[in-house]
Formats: sequence, structure tokens, C-alpha cells
Amino acid sequence: MSKPSRSTNISRSTGRVSRIDRERLLGQQGCVAWLTGLSGSGKSTLAHHLESLLLDQGHLVYVFDGDNLRHGLCGDLGFSAEDRTENIRRAGEVAALLADTGAIVLCSFISPYRADRERVRKTVGDGRFLEVHVDASVAVCEQRDPKGLYKKARQGLIPEFTGIDAPYEAPIDPEVRVDTGTLGIAEAAQQIHHRLSVRGFLSPPTTPETAP
Amino acid sequence: MSKPSRSTNISRSTGRVSRIDRERLLGQQGCVAWLTGLSGSGKSTLAHHLESLLLDQGHLVYVFDGDNLRHGLCGDLGFSAEDRTENIRRAGEVAALLADTGAIVLCSFISPYRADRERVRKTVGDGRFLEVHVDASVAVCEQRDPKGLYKKARQGLIPEFTGIDAPYEAPIDPEVRVDTGTLGIAEAAQQIHHRLSVRGFLSPPTTPETAP
Repeated sequence: MSKPSRSTNISRSTGRVSRIDRERLLGQQGCVAWLTGLSGSGKSTLAHHLESLLLDQGHLVYVFDGDNLRHGLCGDLGFSAEDRTENIRRAGEVAALLADTGAIVLCSFISPYRADRERVRKTVGDGRFLEVHVDASVAVCEQRDPKGLYKKARQGLIPEFTGIDAPYEAPIDPEVRVDTGTLGIAEAAQQIHHRLSVRGFLSPPTTPETAP
Repeated sequence: MSKPSRSTNISRSTGRVSRIDRERLLGQQGCVAWLTGLSGSGKSTLAHHLESLLLDQGHLVYVFDGDNLRHGLCGDLGFSAEDRTENIRRAGEVAALLADTGAIVLCSFISPYRADRERVRKTVGDGRFLEVHVDASVAVCEQRDPKGLYKKARQGLIPEFTGIDAPYEAPIDPEVRVDTGTLGIAEAAQQIHHRLSVRGFLSPPTTPETAP
């Protein structure tokens, strides 16, 4: 980071631009809200609802999605435990870069393994990371089955399907837990928004020392 | 390297917020200026100079750097031809994501292979991509040798060093070519800035149809 300056009127002279310069420009602070949960739990719907909410309030927000990632950067990976771990490792590295632009990054990944999520937290930095458990039971998700994947998994057409024949390790102490089995999407989005706000991410940085 | 084909049962999620919404917010259009050239040609210095210039003008700009990438996302890769190709493939995917936030992304990668750079162009999208050849001869770069790498390469301590015992395929028809052997950094940065401006990236999108 560049030398701390308390004045917002001084234009940064020479030297490298730091994240805090971008955050001052944007009037917010880069962070990662990591939505984890079963397929069909509502992660993507929730992320996109929150995205709209934040954009309408003038925030630079970006949804980073497991499905989209797998088409490009992680197109070489499958769904074995090893490949899932590598997928989440790469996703964490990219999420950290995206947040480094100053954007509020909403990540939507099943990310079933606790250790993988903890590694992402370390990569992003604990002070910039919110784990959000999008919590709905297998029964609820299977009843919704928006993409027909549970049906296929039960028929044995999708091996190693999280919640059916692959494990999901629920977060023990997430920053936010939303029960989408009982809560509406708007209400769930509000809870995450509230946490982002309380943590200061929706406000500009004041001094380098007080960045979250 | 395997072609991305292992991920199945993936549907691309589409949200209500699009890149153009973010670009309207930012008053600019996301793009990638891809600085390619020999080690010591001035890519990083140039990228950071341009970064300062653009930030001072109120633009969200991000320098994406080969060295940083190799510590994280590409920490598993070496410098063989195959690993260089995979490194640039991943860098291209990440650059495309970064530009998708609406940021002006300045990439600084030796990226010695023409085919690799052309693949990045396709990944980012031709309309959002500027190839910038940071052009300085091996003789000039070796004389500068800011990191002492050429000396080590000549001593045989760094195998497969671009320009010494690994090839550099110069761009044939880059969008910008700056000769840092004769041009000052400020002047070179202005030339790239001019091209970004002419292409419309420094202005907000008008209608979806006129996006570059």
C-alpha cells in the first residue's frame, strides 16, 4: 500500500496505485461474500437479487459463479473430491483478485468442503471475507430441483452429487446463515446486505489504518 | 493440455445486472490492454504509469501482473512451453473476468507465444482487447537487466529464458506498439491512453448496441 494520507483532496502523486485508491474512487471497500450451500439452495438467485439491490444503490458489485467458472478457467476439472478442491482453490484466487479491484464480489459455489472454504478465507484475507451459509435441507432442495439434477442423481446419472452421494460439510460458524427453506429471497438478501453494511464494506475507506 | 470438456450438467446462470450496468455506473467500458514484451522491456513500469494516469482521471483501472499471478493461481506452473501456455490461458480467463467488472485491466505478461495471445484475444473478445507490444531489443533489455535475470540466464542459471534460449514471437499487427528503447515511459503511456480513448473505453456506454 502507498503511504497513508488522511486528506481526500490530495491526488495521489507518484508510485503504485493501491486498492485503497480504487476504494476511495468507488466509495466502498472490496470484499468477498462467499455463498455456500447445496445445489438448489438458492445461492445464485440470492446472489443476483443482492447484486441488483447493491447496484441500484450505486455499488460496484460482481457475481462470480461456479457454473460460469467451470466453462473457462476450470473447464479442465471434474467433480471428484480432488477436482472440487482445485476448483475452489482457483475460485478463491480469482475472487481475491476481483475484490482487489474494489468490487463487492458475491461468490456462489456449492464448495462442500470446510477446509476448502477456510483456504479461500485465508487467500482473500479474513477481514475481507464473509462466509454465507445458504441453508436448506436436502429434502427442500430435492423438492425444488430447479435443474432436475437431484432426479438425475437419484437415477445414478450424476455420480458424486453433493447431498446424495458426496458430502456437504456445513459451516460451523459462518458470518451469515440464511435459511432459504423458510425465508424469502428478498429477506435473505437483506440479511447479507445488513452484514456487508455493518462490516463497513458499503462505505469508503477512511484511513488505511481503519480499513476492515 | 486437455480441451475443457469434463464439466457436465452446467447451465450458465444469467442475472439481471449486466456488464453494461456496471459500465454506466463507472462511466467507462471494461477492456484489456495486454502488454507483451521481453523481460526488462518496461511492461510493468509502463502499466503502473498508465494506471496512475487513469486513476487520476477517475477511472477504475487494475494492473494484472504475471509475477503476482504465479504466486497464487498459477503457483503450480513452471516455465516450460506447455506451462507458459497454460499460465497465459488462465491469465486470459482471469483478465476477461476482471474486465467484466467494468474495469480497465492492464495486463503485463511476457507471453512469448503468438498463439497464446490470440487465444486471450478470443477469450476476452476482440472488441475489448488491445494488444500492446512493449518493444525493446534483447540487447537493450539485457543492458538494463533491472532484476539481474539476463546475467543469470547467460550463466545458465535460468533455463528457457525468453530472448536467450527460449523464443519470443513478436506481435505482427498489434493495436499499439511502443518502442521503449527510444521512447520515454510517459510518452509510451500516452500512446496507449490515446488508443484506449479512441476506442471509446474511457467513455460510458451509450446504448447496448454501440458497446465496442
